Amino acid sequence: MYIVCVRDHLMIAHSFKGEIFGPAQRLHGATYVVDLELRRPALDEDNLVVDIGLASENLKQVLAELNYRNLDDEGAFTGANTTTEFLARAIFDRIAAFIAEGRLGESARGLASMRVTLHESHVAWACYDGPLPTPARS
Amino acid sequence: MYIVCVRDHLMIAHSFKGEIFGPAQRLHGATYVVDLELRRPALDEDNLVVDIGLASENLKQVLAELNYRNLDDEGAFTGANTTTEFLARAIFDRIAAFIAEGRLGESARGLASMRVTLHESHVAWACYDGPLPTPARS
Amino acid sequence: MYIVCVRDHLMIAHSFKGEIFGPAQRLHGATYVVDLELRRPALDEDNLVVDIGLASENLKQVLAELNYRNLDDEGAFTGANTTTEFLARAIFDRIAAFIAEGRLGESARGLASMRVTLHESHVAWACYDGPLPTPARS
Amino acid sequence: MYIVCVRDHLMIAHSFKGEIFGPAQRLHGATYVVDLELRRPALDEDNLVVDIGLASENLKQVLAELNYRNLDDEGAFTGANTTTEFLARAIFDRIAAFIAEGRLGESARGLASMRVTLHESHVAWACYDGPLPTPARS
Amino acid sequence: MYIVCVRDHLMIAHSFKGEIFGPAQRLHGATYVVDLELRRPALDEDNLVVDIGLASENLKQVLAELNYRNLDDEGAFTGANTTTEFLARAIFDRIAAFIAEGRLGESARGLASMRVTLHESHVAWACYDGPLPTPARS
Amino acid sequence: MYIVCVRDHLMIAHSFKGEIFGPAQRLHGATYVVDLELRRPALDEDNLVVDIGLASENLKQVLAELNYRNLDDEGAFTGANTTTEFLARAIFDRIAAFIAEGRLGESARGLASMRVTLHESHVAWACYDGPLPTPARS
Repeated sequence: MYIVCVRDHLMIAHSFKGEIFGPAQRLHGATYVVDLELRRPALDEDNLVVDIGLASENLKQVLAELNYRNLDDEGAFTGANTTTEFLARAIFDRIAAFIAEGRLGESARGLASMRVTLHESHVAWACYDGPLPTPARS
Repeated sequence: MYIVCVRDHLMIAHSFKGEIFGPAQRLHGATYVVDLELRRPALDEDNLVVDIGLASENLKQVLAELNYRNLDDEGAFTGANTTTEFLARAIFDRIAAFIAEGRLGESARGLASMRVTLHESHVAWACYDGPLPTPARS
Repeated sequence: MYIVCVRDHLMIAHSFKGEIFGPAQRLHGATYVVDLELRRPALDEDNLVVDIGLASENLKQVLAELNYRNLDDEGAFTGANTTTEFLARAIFDRIAAFIAEGRLGESARGLASMRVTLHESHVAWACYDGPLPTPARS
Repeated sequence: MYIVCVRDHLMIAHSFKGEIFGPAQRLHGATYVVDLELRRPALDEDNLVVDIGLASENLKQVLAELNYRNLDDEGAFTGANTTTEFLARAIFDRIAAFIAEGRLGESARGLASMRVTLHESHVAWACYDGPLPTPARS
Repeated sequence: MYIVCVRDHLMIAHSFKGEIFGPAQRLHGATYVVDLELRRPALDEDNLVVDIGLASENLKQVLAELNYRNLDDEGAFTGANTTTEFLARAIFDRIAAFIAEGRLGESARGLASMRVTLHESHVAWACYDGPLPTPARS
Repeated sequence: MYIVCVRDHLMIAHSFKGEIFGPAQRLHGATYVVDLELRRPALDEDNLVVDIGLASENLKQVLAELNYRNLDDEGAFTGANTTTEFLARAIFDRIAAFIAEGRLGESARGLASMRVTLHESHVAWACYDGPLPTPARS
């Protein structure tokens, strides 16, 4: 299996609901350093997993929709605790949709699986890892 | 699959037996920066993989039992070469027992697998990765 | 010159005023990984720059007063843009006061200067570096 | 599963063919920080995944054959785009051959799989991950 | 003293002249992860050391003039060994000129000194650190 | 000012004397990732701060005299608490002596100052920074 990873970041505010979150129930924020890993079993004809320029641009575009925002006010997340692991999945789903739409290039339809990791500090990170939806590869 | 990781560290002395270890047969020591990764297929009702506070506290407690010690004098390791990979497994087993005892919260019984990584320098690390024992999840 | 550094982090929300800040005028947030460097020309009688345990505890206490908060609501910062460099100075001043009060130990009065660095992402950091006020060293 | 990883680096020049590469079609270069991960299901009798000294030496030897070179002039790569993911595979294959030849020690024949990661900057990396060829483990 | 730092990178090919360089006399290459530190004794009226957006854009522009190139063919460096420390100075001088031209904003004329660091691998870096030319601050 | 830095590491056991050290009074150990920074105001005729190969080799040799040892048994440190900051100074002095002896090359006599940093974990480091003795530069 071949993997390529590109990195970017986003900075958001949010709060959590539930006693388990302790002081994080207050409005606070985070920088998430985001790693997008893309995997495929064989390289394309250019010896690439994916066009790394397109991968970086699309990651930046997905993050721009969340960046410099208070996630408590984002309609897409109403009622949800926007934990690091939840956000990793939300970003995963948006990148997967972009791949299905062909925005990472035709060759990107050969991608088999993906991981999105959000580093929230020097001592904690979370990720979502899964196969890419079948429609994206047909 | 969702993964959450927390980081801590421990500082120990030890020596190895066997010519393969060269100068490391002498009494020396190491700082291990320890990453504990916890995995589950779906988030719990709080949108969490695990209560990250409990995960951090339990990792710290497991490491405290080894920290600032000469492992050559620890009864639990008598006769064993306490290599980085061996220690990763020892910490894995202790965390797994804590999960089975419910110390990481009831929800943590939904954890499917785990990885414990010990970084011993800027150029070497080792880990043990495996499923969590069935009793821990029933 | 001898230097000792300890690291911790904090997670806050805030917004900025002024066109120069672009999208960061919206309420957003940040994780700051904080490095506290303490300097002195000669070691104390224990061969230490400072009691590293006390340094870590006091850094944690200073950060706790800001952690998991919306800085726009903190009275101490009313009307101020809480930029990374501004916050580095605010933390510097609080640590300096703690040193003057003897909270880092009597020996810490021998400290000559200090640096507080806030890493806001993998591509940006800011710091404030300066001498410790004379009263702290008398 | 147990994993051990060692790190080294190499510095090369190369160019790419194909419009998709944009300015990287020009002769340029890269530092690749290389991580070699070796995996096996059980430790050997010394409690090791592999002799870490032999693993490091062999990685260095494989990298030495490529280091400080213009890859456009290397016969082994004629006509190929030496992308990061392609090079990860090339290094993987050479290490796999060394293991098959017994250069990492007899015990290394118990290795089950391997990953070679090349970090090309602070924001991008690529790797090849796969099982070790059956002949190496018989 | 306040400091702000932004990070970017460039990828180049080059060769060195002189026996002291050993195998690096051959055409090879490097990724340089570049840190630009900007310093001033007091913050501006926005509580900034510098407009971090302008600092990042100008660093990117300076690096773009060198990026994806064979430095042996660059007229500006004819006859010079483009060592890491030499390149740090070259980038320093170009950024200093940009500051003098006002490209980092009028407020940037208050900058007192600067450091440019080039990380060439996980085990080596070099930098140039110096005051900003007087014309830039008048 | 130009600076070049090379990195290596060492792994030792030791114990401390004095209640201030708490559990670190027990025999334990540490990995120290060591950064050696060398500074000079102008480059030599090869555009170098120092022959980086010689700097790395000499750092490795100095560390080899301490590596894989119990520092409590080293005659050179009898009665001393071998804290991180103390060890940074000890390594500084040995490198300074090597420079004075010409082991880093004749050109290295132009070095003006030096810093030795020991990273003991992901959350703590210490260093000694100072001018090089005059005899080394005459």
